[in-house]
Amino acid sequence: MSGVTNTKRPHETAIGLSKADLSTPSLLLDLDVFDANLQKMAAHVKSAGIKLRPHAKSHKCVEIAQRQIGAGALGVCATTIREAEALAAAGIPAILITSPMVGANKVRRLIELTRDHPDAISVVDNHAHVEQLSAAAAAAAVTLNVLVDLDLGLHRTGIASVKEALSLADLIVRLPNLNLRGVSAYSSMSAHIVGYGERRVHSLNAMQPAIELMQRLKRRGVSAEILSGGSTGTYNIDTELDGMTELQAGSYIFMDVDYRVIGGKSGPIFDDFGPSLTVMATVVSKSHSGFATVDAGFKAFATDRPFGPDLRGVTGCTYHFAGDEHGILELADPGLDLGFGDRLEFIVPHCDPTVNLFDRIYCTRGHTVEAVWPICRGYD
Amino acid sequence: MSGVTNTKRPHETAIGLSKADLSTPSLLLDLDVFDANLQKMAAHVKSAGIKLRPHAKSHKCVEIAQRQIGAGALGVCATTIREAEALAAAGIPAILITSPMVGANKVRRLIELTRDHPDAISVVDNHAHVEQLSAAAAAAAVTLNVLVDLDLGLHRTGIASVKEALSLADLIVRLPNLNLRGVSAYSSMSAHIVGYGERRVHSLNAMQPAIELMQRLKRRGVSAEILSGGSTGTYNIDTELDGMTELQAGSYIFMDVDYRVIGGKSGPIFDDFGPSLTVMATVVSKSHSGFATVDAGFKAFATDRPFGPDLRGVTGCTYHFAGDEHGILELADPGLDLGFGDRLEFIVPHCDPTVNLFDRIYCTRGHTVEAVWPICRGYD
Repeated sequence: MSGVTNTKRPHETAIGLSKADLSTPSLLLDLDVFDANLQKMAAHVKSAGIKLRPHAKSHKCVEIAQRQIGAGALGVCATTIREAEALAAAGIPAILITSPMVGANKVRRLIELTRDHPDAISVVDNHAHVEQLSAAAAAAAVTLNVLVDLDLGLHRTGIASVKEALSLADLIVRLPNLNLRGVSAYSSMSAHIVGYGERRVHSLNAMQPAIELMQRLKRRGVSAEILSGGSTGTYNIDTELDGMTELQAGSYIFMDVDYRVIGGKSGPIFDDFGPSLTVMATVVSKSHSGFATVDAGFKAFATDRPFGPDLRGVTGCTYHFAGDEHGILELADPGLDLGFGDRLEFIVPHCDPTVNLFDRIYCTRGHTVEAVWPICRGYD
Repeated sequence: MSGVTNTKRPHETAIGLSKADLSTPSLLLDLDVFDANLQKMAAHVKSAGIKLRPHAKSHKCVEIAQRQIGAGALGVCATTIREAEALAAAGIPAILITSPMVGANKVRRLIELTRDHPDAISVVDNHAHVEQLSAAAAAAAVTLNVLVDLDLGLHRTGIASVKEALSLADLIVRLPNLNLRGVSAYSSMSAHIVGYGERRVHSLNAMQPAIELMQRLKRRGVSAEILSGGSTGTYNIDTELDGMTELQAGSYIFMDVDYRVIGGKSGPIFDDFGPSLTVMATVVSKSHSGFATVDAGFKAFATDRPFGPDLRGVTGCTYHFAGDEHGILELADPGLDLGFGDRLEFIVPHCDPTVNLFDRIYCTRGHTVEAVWPICRGYD
């Protein structure tokens, strides 16, 4: 109770503590489940003869990227320049930035990143951007690796058609200081289709333009050795595609409510990978029979899905968001044994934007904190 | 373009830059609008003869709290122990933590905070918690200031009735090392009621139990000098209440889409305070007529409301979330002049959880960055 404990931030002394000693809300990673997820994906891509460049936007964590590389991944994907810089500075190889790096600030940083890490890759989807990148790279005497980003129908990023993509590829080949490495094609609309069979049909169809683009680039003699795409939802579907060279799946290491409900090959819950990630909260108010309030709300769980988190190991209650720092558990059975001060763990609604709310992950085995891993979140 | 610029993080050299030189997405604060909001609220509470303890959960920013104190606030509110610790360490006085601090970790830190800052206050809503706090405070030879938190109907936190609150107050007075200071009563359900008239009726009714509790405490001879509550939505309503001693409004410094649509005394847009806070984004893909994609998605805007951000200064387009790092602008007029690489500023959907996504606020006057203020976000 003395003031001496104030000299260290609480997380700095967390290793070896029990989970019960942590403040709440805290982000927890069950290392046994995490390790099993890592190994399962590694074995899958090995047997399928495809490469894995898992998406680090899910975790933004050097320690996790290191373990993915250790399990055989050739590199990782990133979405922001800050993620890429942090991962590269820690020695993570072969970073593919899957969003276009647009504007003077990001172009400059992409060039600096590539100067130090010549295996970095980014994506392009229009002529103006390609011309800007070429000019800036030439001025800096750096060669940028690029993939042509192909829109598969969402109209988010990506060039609109195979025909336009071929024209863009021609421009890349023609311009100085650019190295065309292949194609990026992510079918985000396929990832969360409920039902393995429906998802399989959707993804295999959605990816056809990308397969066609790769074939036509090869027929023209354009070097295009990479076709990158795929999600955790399609990890055992896209491996059927002839021409897909690598998977970008990210969520498989954590899982979340969003992915669990899409169903797997073998049943209504997609449990090929286990839910390793939870947010631990405390019952901080219990004034009403039928309700219990926990200290985890908008700032502890992603709110981008139309559902909240799932309380792990307890049935008969539903979480409702109740502001920045609170959620209200509605108890179907008012006698459900949830008392003031109880610690609860929740499977998160959507892993990527939930991880982004925390500064660190408390890694546990059983009840003990074994490691604390920083999360490189936010923007510069 | 040389690697030398890599030695500093980009924000460290941002002062004096143009907004156009920043990376995107970035959180911007228009200092002229912010200053006007600060002064308007200060004048309002002064003329109403009520105190202001603005909620720092909106900004988590020492520099903003300092300016609120400078403009006459008696202290600030906080929601988490980490916010309270960071603000107190920077010299912000009279911090009221409006959420119950439950569990050994938070109780220990609340005691340490109070040892160094005897004007800190927190809230309680049940007997078990009061007994725990008293025992821990007695063991540490510290006296904790507490308010009785009264539930006004949301069933989030707060004791359920005036009668139970009186019993809790008796316990607080009886137990050692606790100092009952008054009542906390926040009507979150009133804050966003559309229409000033409807909102006024709702809030004045909702607050009646709190007014009654204060009166009954005084009749019993219990010292209870504080009745804290109110929101930006009710800032000019709750000042009518006889017995309300201070306002907790937080969002008024920033504003957001959520508050603008509730309507003000004088019209359908609540513009008593100006929107000072924006997220700046870049058009990073423009492959389709009728759509433009910006680099700001789930990780740059709060997603807890059923609407996205509003593009400032441009009409005829609607933002749709499109993943972690992107949003798609749907252009009612496909000829709307939004091109690849354009910089756009968005009024945020909900300010508190949006601020929580960024590490810093770039403060601007006109087009120039005048200051960069850190945000103390996340948890320990």
